[in-house]
Amino acid sequence: MSATGLWLIGARGSVATTVVAGAAAIRSGLLPPQGCVAESLPPCGLPGIGELMFGGHDIASISLRKRAERLSEAGVIPPALPALLADELDAAEAEIRPGYSREGGQAAAAARLAGDLISFRDRHGLDRVVVVDVSSTEPPVTWRPEFADLGALETALAGGAEVLPPSSLYAYAAFRAGCGYVAFTPSAGPALPALEELAAAECLPYAGRDGKTGETLVKSALAPMFAGRGLKVRSWSGLNLLGGGDGATLADPSARQSKEVSKDRTVPGILGREVEGRTHIDYVADLGEWKTAWDHVTFEGFMGVRMTLQFTWQGCDSALAAPLVLDLARLVARAHERGRTGVLGELGYFFKDPLGGDEHALAVQYERLRTFAEALA
Amino acid sequence: MSATGLWLIGARGSVATTVVAGAAAIRSGLLPPQGCVAESLPPCGLPGIGELMFGGHDIASISLRKRAERLSEAGVIPPALPALLADELDAAEAEIRPGYSREGGQAAAAARLAGDLISFRDRHGLDRVVVVDVSSTEPPVTWRPEFADLGALETALAGGAEVLPPSSLYAYAAFRAGCGYVAFTPSAGPALPALEELAAAECLPYAGRDGKTGETLVKSALAPMFAGRGLKVRSWSGLNLLGGGDGATLADPSARQSKEVSKDRTVPGILGREVEGRTHIDYVADLGEWKTAWDHVTFEGFMGVRMTLQFTWQGCDSALAAPLVLDLARLVARAHERGRTGVLGELGYFFKDPLGGDEHALAVQYERLRTFAEALA
Amino acid sequence: MSATGLWLIGARGSVATTVVAGAAAIRSGLLPPQGCVAESLPPCGLPGIGELMFGGHDIASISLRKRAERLSEAGVIPPALPALLADELDAAEAEIRPGYSREGGQAAAAARLAGDLISFRDRHGLDRVVVVDVSSTEPPVTWRPEFADLGALETALAGGAEVLPPSSLYAYAAFRAGCGYVAFTPSAGPALPALEELAAAECLPYAGRDGKTGETLVKSALAPMFAGRGLKVRSWSGLNLLGGGDGATLADPSARQSKEVSKDRTVPGILGREVEGRTHIDYVADLGEWKTAWDHVTFEGFMGVRMTLQFTWQGCDSALAAPLVLDLARLVARAHERGRTGVLGELGYFFKDPLGGDEHALAVQYERLRTFAEALA
Amino acid sequence: MSATGLWLIGARGSVATTVVAGAAAIRSGLLPPQGCVAESLPPCGLPGIGELMFGGHDIASISLRKRAERLSEAGVIPPALPALLADELDAAEAEIRPGYSREGGQAAAAARLAGDLISFRDRHGLDRVVVVDVSSTEPPVTWRPEFADLGALETALAGGAEVLPPSSLYAYAAFRAGCGYVAFTPSAGPALPALEELAAAECLPYAGRDGKTGETLVKSALAPMFAGRGLKVRSWSGLNLLGGGDGATLADPSARQSKEVSKDRTVPGILGREVEGRTHIDYVADLGEWKTAWDHVTFEGFMGVRMTLQFTWQGCDSALAAPLVLDLARLVARAHERGRTGVLGELGYFFKDPLGGDEHALAVQYERLRTFAEALA
Ligand SMILES: NC(=O)c1ccc[n+]([C@@H]2O[C@H](COP(=O)([O-])OP(=O)(O)OC[C@H]3O[C@@H](n4cnc5c(N)ncnc54)[C@H](O)[C@@H]3O)[C@@H](O)[C@H]2O)c1
Ligand SMILES: NC(=O)c1ccc[n+]([C@@H]2O[C@H](COP(=O)([O-])OP(=O)(O)OC[C@H]3O[C@@H](n4cnc5c(N)ncnc54)[C@H](O)[C@@H]3O)[C@@H](O)[C@H]2O)c1
Ligand SMILES: NC(=O)c1ccc[n+]([C@@H]2O[C@H](COP(=O)([O-])OP(=O)(O)OC[C@H]3O[C@@H](n4cnc5c(N)ncnc54)[C@H](O)[C@@H]3O)[C@@H](O)[C@H]2O)c1
Ligand SMILES: NC(=O)c1ccc[n+]([C@@H]2O[C@H](COP(=O)([O-])OP(=O)(O)OC[C@H]3O[C@@H](n4cnc5c(N)ncnc54)[C@H](O)[C@@H]3O)[C@@H](O)[C@H]2O)c1
Ligand code: NA
Ligand code: NA
Repeated sequence: MSATGLWLIGARGSVATTVVAGAAAIRSGLLPPQGCVAESLPPCGLPGIGELMFGGHDIASISLRKRAERLSEAGVIPPALPALLADELDAAEAEIRPGYSREGGQAAAAARLAGDLISFRDRHGLDRVVVVDVSSTEPPVTWRPEFADLGALETALAGGAEVLPPSSLYAYAAFRAGCGYVAFTPSAGPALPALEELAAAECLPYAGRDGKTGETLVKSALAPMFAGRGLKVRSWSGLNLLGGGDGATLADPSARQSKEVSKDRTVPGILGREVEGRTHIDYVADLGEWKTAWDHVTFEGFMGVRMTLQFTWQGCDSALAAPLVLDLARLVARAHERGRTGVLGELGYFFKDPLGGDEHALAVQYERLRTFAEALA
Repeated sequence: MSATGLWLIGARGSVATTVVAGAAAIRSGLLPPQGCVAESLPPCGLPGIGELMFGGHDIASISLRKRAERLSEAGVIPPALPALLADELDAAEAEIRPGYSREGGQAAAAARLAGDLISFRDRHGLDRVVVVDVSSTEPPVTWRPEFADLGALETALAGGAEVLPPSSLYAYAAFRAGCGYVAFTPSAGPALPALEELAAAECLPYAGRDGKTGETLVKSALAPMFAGRGLKVRSWSGLNLLGGGDGATLADPSARQSKEVSKDRTVPGILGREVEGRTHIDYVADLGEWKTAWDHVTFEGFMGVRMTLQFTWQGCDSALAAPLVLDLARLVARAHERGRTGVLGELGYFFKDPLGGDEHALAVQYERLRTFAEALA
Repeated sequence: MSATGLWLIGARGSVATTVVAGAAAIRSGLLPPQGCVAESLPPCGLPGIGELMFGGHDIASISLRKRAERLSEAGVIPPALPALLADELDAAEAEIRPGYSREGGQAAAAARLAGDLISFRDRHGLDRVVVVDVSSTEPPVTWRPEFADLGALETALAGGAEVLPPSSLYAYAAFRAGCGYVAFTPSAGPALPALEELAAAECLPYAGRDGKTGETLVKSALAPMFAGRGLKVRSWSGLNLLGGGDGATLADPSARQSKEVSKDRTVPGILGREVEGRTHIDYVADLGEWKTAWDHVTFEGFMGVRMTLQFTWQGCDSALAAPLVLDLARLVARAHERGRTGVLGELGYFFKDPLGGDEHALAVQYERLRTFAEALA
Repeated sequence: MSATGLWLIGARGSVATTVVAGAAAIRSGLLPPQGCVAESLPPCGLPGIGELMFGGHDIASISLRKRAERLSEAGVIPPALPALLADELDAAEAEIRPGYSREGGQAAAAARLAGDLISFRDRHGLDRVVVVDVSSTEPPVTWRPEFADLGALETALAGGAEVLPPSSLYAYAAFRAGCGYVAFTPSAGPALPALEELAAAECLPYAGRDGKTGETLVKSALAPMFAGRGLKVRSWSGLNLLGGGDGATLADPSARQSKEVSKDRTVPGILGREVEGRTHIDYVADLGEWKTAWDHVTFEGFMGVRMTLQFTWQGCDSALAAPLVLDLARLVARAHERGRTGVLGELGYFFKDPLGGDEHALAVQYERLRTFAEALA
C-alpha cells in the first residue's frame, strides 16, 4: 500500500495535533472530511487521507495524547475522540523528533533534521514526504547577504554561523532531504532566493505562506465585491481576539508584526491601493481556541454616499487550519509525483501572503486551484 | 448627437429620482460615476451617461425637484445638488406621463403607455429607448392561462379583461413600442411566456429581476466562500430594517412576500440545498433611506466544530440601486444596438433573482458579465 | 435538618433539569453558585441550596438522567456531571408526577396535583414547598368571567368546565396545597383575580412573570442609560434566534405571541412611551441551547443628531434561567416563612413582565430587591 | 437680566463650537434642549441656557463660523444653522482670546489668562463665570514636588519655571480669577493638590474628569448588570475608531495613553477586579465626527457556561459632549452660587474618571446627581 509522509514542524501544537487527530478520525470513518477543500476539487490523483503517515519536529515535550485531551476540553476535538484514537496518536508520537531552536551549529542541525526526514521515509518505505511548517510564528527576519544564493548560504552554514531563522533551516533541511514543503506560517521559511535555488536544484515543489483561515478569508471574499460594484473602500479596520495556540506567541509584538504585515496585504492586494485603518491582534487567554475578529469597513457609493459594513467572525483557528494542512500536503505530494518544481503559485487560495503570485481575490484563486487540480489528473 | 432614452416606471420614486439627479451630476462633471459597474468593464460601446435622456411613468404626482430635495434632506443627494440640477430635473419632469394602476381597460392602457414611449423616442429622435421598472414592489401574481402565449394574452386584453399585473402591462407596452426592458423589481414584469414570445417577435433584449444592492449582494459574495472551503452552512438568518422608498410598500405582507422569496433564492442557489433560517424585512420609518441588515450564519467545519459569522450592512438603498439602473440601461441599449434579443442571462450579476440563468455566485456572475461586455465591443 | 421543597412544573425541561443538576453540583461542592443573585444580596435567612429537595410535574416521560446527558452534549452541563450526579438526578426523578395537560376534569386534576404536593411535603417533613412554573409557554389566554373571583371559579371547576389554562390550574393547586408560587413563564399562571384572592386567603406569597435572562435583561440595563442622558430612542428592533427547549414551542405563532408581548413591555415601560420596531423570535433548531439575539437601537441627541447602538447577545438560556429559579424559590420560601402574602412586587428584578409593579429599570429593580432582602433578615 | 459666563478652553474645537452653536439654536427656539441631562433633573435654580454668555481661549485661529460650517458639512450641525446663528457665533468669536501653549513664562501667562476671565466677567456684568476645559487631550503628566502645595507652586511659577501642563495652568488662572471649573478632558487640569488647595481658599467648586459620552457610557450601564446577576466577566476588549476633533490628537501615542487609562477605569471600578482585554483607540480620518466603538465581553454563568455580549456604538462625539458641557457649566455655576466649594464628587455621572468619588455604576451615579440637584433647589 503506497503511503505519503506528512512531517509537521511544530508537531505538538494546536494545529498539528488537530491534523493528526482529524486525519485519524476520517480514516477510521468516525468523521467526514468536512472542511477539506480537496473534496470539491475534480479528482486529481491525490494521496488519500488514509494513506498519510505522520511525523514531525517540535521543541516542546507534551505528548500528542495530552495535547488532544486539552483540545477536547477546549471544545475543538469531540470529547470521545482522544481515547478512541490513542493508537494513532501514539504512532505519530513515535515519529516526533526534537526540533531546532536557535541553539547554534546550523549545519549540524540541518543534517540532523534532514536525517530524521530521510530515516522516516526509508523506515516506512514512503513514496515521498511533504514537510508542513505549523510552528510558532517568528518575528520578521532582517536580510542577510547569505540569503542571496545557495553557495553563499552553505559556506556560511559550514562556517558555523547562525544564518537562518528556524523556519528557513527546516526548509533547507527538507529540500536537502528531497521533501516538498508547505509554509503555513508567516515566517520566512523557504521564501529566500538561496532556498528557491535549492528547491529548483532538487526538483522539489513548495507552497506558502501563512494559512488563510478566518478574518483574512472573509476579507478576500468581500474586497472583490466592493471593487466589482465600484464601491470605493475608504477604511478597513479590525480587531482579532485569540487565546490558545498561536495567541500566546502573538502576544510578543515582534512575532505579531509578521502576522499583521501578512494579514494587511489582502485588501490593498485586491483593491490595488492602500486604505486607512489597521488590524490589531490581541492575546486574550480567556478565548482559548476561539478566535473572534471584528472588521469595520467604510465605503463610498454613488454621489459620494457613505456606507459601512461590519462583520464578526467567531471561528476555531485549529479546526480551520487543519483541513487546509491536509489539502496542501496532498496537493504538494501529487505535484511532486507529477514533476512540478519550485513555488506552486496556483495554491494562493490557501494563503494570506501567496508565494509565486499576487492574486488575493478568493474566487479567482479558487479558479486557478481548480485548473491546477485538473492539470494534476 | 445620438441619444438613448431611459424611461423609468416609477419615475418619481427614490431610486428613479436618484438616477436622474445622479446622471445629471455626472454629466455636468459635479460628481464622478462612482458605484457604476460599467467603469470597471472593458470598453464596449455603451451609450455615455451624458447621452441619456430621461422620461417615465408614475402614478404619484410629487415633482422631481421636491423628491430630490427630500432625498437631499435624507442625506442621499448632496445638499447643493437639487438647486444646481433644477433644469435637468425639470427636463425629466416634462417627460413623465401618468402611469397605469389597475384601473381596468388594459388594452387601451397598453396603447397609451406604448404611445408615450413612441412619442418620447420620435420627438427627441432617440436611437432607442430602454424601459427600467423601479416602481413599487407588487405582491406575487397567481398564474393565469393567458400568460402562456401571446395570442391568448392579446385576445384577453382586447376583451377588456384585467389580465396583467401593472409591471407586466408596462413590459408588454415597452415591447410593443420596440423598447428593451430592465425589471429592477421582484414583480412579474416580463417574466411571462407570452411576453418572452413578444420580445422575441420584436427582436428586443430584456434583463431582470430585483436589483441586488445590499444584504443579498453580501450573501452572494460570502456563500461561495463557505462552499469552496468545505464549511457546511447550517443556518442563515437575517433581519432587514428599512424606511423610505420601498420600505413603506414592503410593510404590506403580500408585497413583502415577493421580496422575501426573491431574497431567499441566493444562498440555496449557491449552496445547492436549503438551509435553516429566514430573512425578515421590517419597515422602520425612522431609518429613512438607510437600510440596515443583520445576517447571522452558523456553519460546521473540520470534526464538526461549530462556528458563526455575522455581519451588519448599513447602506443607502437608492444610492446603491441608481448606478446599477444606469449600467443596466446602457448595457441593454448596446445589446439592442448589437442585435441581441430575449433575456440577457449574462446580466445576472445585477439581480437577486436572475432571469435566464441560475448562477448566484457573485464572482462567477462578474466573469460572465465581463465576457458579455467583450462580446458587445 | 430543615428542608424546603422546590416543585418544578415542567420538571423534565431544559431549565428544570439544569436547576436540579446545578443545585446538586453546588451542594456537592463540584461547582460554585455562580449566576445566583442571592450571592450578592445581604444575608437574609434564605434556605441554603443544600437544603432544597426537588420534585415536580411534567407531561413528558424522558428521564432526568437522559435529559441531563442531552444538555451535556449541548455544552450546557459539564460533560462529567450527569454521571457524577446520577443519584441526585434519580432522587428528583422519583418525585416527578404526571402533570395536567388540558385533558378535562379540572377539579379532579387540581385535587390530584395538590395531593401530589401535600404528599411530597408530608413524606419528607418539609418546612414548606415552593412551586416554580418552567413548563412550555402557553398562548395568551382569553378572559373568562370565572377568572374574576374565587367563588365563580370553583363553581365552574366543580361543574366540570375546562376553565383554566394549565399554568393557572397548577397555580390553583399550589395555593390549595399551601405552597408559594413562582411564574417563570409568560403564561397566565397566578395572575388572575380569583387566584390572587385564593393566595391572600391562604396567606401565600407568589412572584412572576417570565424570567428576564438575555436580550430583555440587556434592554433593561440600556434603556435607562438613554433616558438619563436625554438621548431620545426612536426605534428598537430585535431578532432572537433559539433552538432547544422553549425554542420549539415558540415556533408556534400563538405561543410566541405571549413571549413577544412580554418581551416588548420593557423598553416602553422604562421610556414611558412606545417606540418604533418589533422583536422577532425565530426557532432555529441548529442553535440548540444557544440563544443569539441582535438588537438595533436608533436614537437622537443634541441638535437632532442621529446615532445608533447595536448589540449581539449569545447566551445559554437554561444556564441563565436556572440560577434565577433557585434564587426565586429561596426568596419566596423565606417570604412565606416571614408571613409575606400575595404578589411580591419587589422581585421585579427577575422578570420581563413584573407582577405587582411596573418598574423595568434594572438598577432600580435591584435596589428594591436589596431592600426586600434586608427586610427578610 | 442676570447672566452666567461659560468660558471654553479650546474654544475653536469641535466640542466647543457645537456647544456655542447648540446653545444659540436652543435659545432662539430653533431646536429643543435634547441630550441635556438637566431636563430630567428636578428644578434646582440652574441658570437657563438662554442666560449663558460664551467666551474662551484657544491657540488655533480658525473662526467659529468656519468651524461651524465644517461641522455642518460633517453632518453634526444641521445645514441651515451656521448662517442663521452667524451673529451669536460672532458674539462668542469676539470673546475668544489667545490661549497658552507651553511657550514659557507661566506666571505671566496665568496672569494674562486670569485677566481675560476677569475682564469678560466685568465687561458683561456677569454673576459668575465657569471655565470648561475642552482643549486637546494632553499626555499624562509626571509628578513634580511643586504640585504638592500652593506655596511651592506659586514660588516655582514666580521663578519662571515651566511647572504646570497647560490644562493645569488654565485651572490655576480660573481659580485665581474666582471661576468654577469643569475638566472635560482626561488631562491633569485641577486634579493637583496645590490647585485643590487654591480652590478651597477661593471657595470655588470644580468637577471632572474626561466626559463620559460613548463607549464608556455603555460600559457603565452594562458592567453593573453582569455584577448584579452574578455573571462573571472574564474579558472586556474594545476598538474605538474616530476621526475629527480629538481623533487627530489621539493619533499621538502619549496623548492616547491618558485617554486609554481613563477609559479603562470603568469596568474594574464597577466589578472590583481587573479583567483581561484592553481598549484600542485608532485615528481613522475617514470617520470624521462619527466615533464607532466595538466592545466584546466574555462572561461565565451557572455551572461555568461561557457566554458573550458584543456591541457597536456609532455616535457623534461632539454632539454627545456638548449638552453635557452645558449641563456641567450650569450645575457648577449654581453650586458656586449656593456656596459649594472644592470637588463636586456628585457629578461623577458625567465623567469616565470621576474626581472626588470612585463610583462608576451609571444608575448609582444618576441617583447621586438627582440628590445633588435636589440639594441645590
Ligand atoms: N490556526 C490558524 O488559523 C492559522 C492560520 C494561519 C497560520 N497559522 C500558523 O500556524 C502556526 C501554528 O499555530 P498553532 O495555533 O498550532 O500554534 P501552537 O503554539 O499551538 O503550536 C506551535 C508549535 O510549534 C512548536 N515550535 C515552536 N518553535 C519551534 C521550533 N523552533 N521547532 C519546532 N517546533 C517549534 C511549539 O512548541 C508548538 O508546539 C502558527 O505559526 C500560526 O501563525 C495558524
Ligand atoms: N433600492 C434598492 O436597493 C432596490 C433593490 C432591489 C429592488 N428595488 C426595487 O425598486 C423599486 C423602487 O424602489 P424605491 O425605493 O424607489 O421605491 P419608492 O416607493 O420610492 O418608488 C416607487 C415609485 O413607484 C411608483 N409607482 C407605484 N405603482 C406604480 C405604477 N403602477 N405605475 C407607475 N409608477 C408606480 C410610486 O408612485 C413611486 O414613485 C421597488 O420595487 C424596489 O423593490 C430597489
Ligand atoms: N430559559 C430562559 O432564558 C427562559 C427565560 C424566561 C422564561 N422561560 C420559560 O421557561 C419555560 C421552560 O423553558 P425550557 O427551555 O426549559 O423549555 P422546555 O421545552 O425544555 O421545557 C418545558 C417542559 O415543560 C413540560 N410541559 C409542557 N406542558 C406541560 C404541562 N401542561 N404540564 C407539565 N409540564 C409541561 C414539557 O414537557 C417540558 O419538559 C418556558 O415557558 C420559557 O418561556 C425561559
Ligand atoms: N467629544 C467627546 O465625546 C469627548 C468625550 C470626553 C472627552 N473629550 C475631550 O474634549 C476635548 C475636545 O475634543 P474635540 O473633539 O473638541 O477636540 P478638537 O481637537 O476639535 O478641539 C480641541 C481644541 O483645543 C484647542 N487647543 C489645543 N491646545 C490648546 C491650548 N493649549 N490652549 C487652548 N486651546 C487649545 C485646539 O486648538 C482645538 O481647537 C478633548 O480633550 C477630548 O478628549 C471629548
Ligand atoms: Na439587496
Ligand atoms: Na466615552
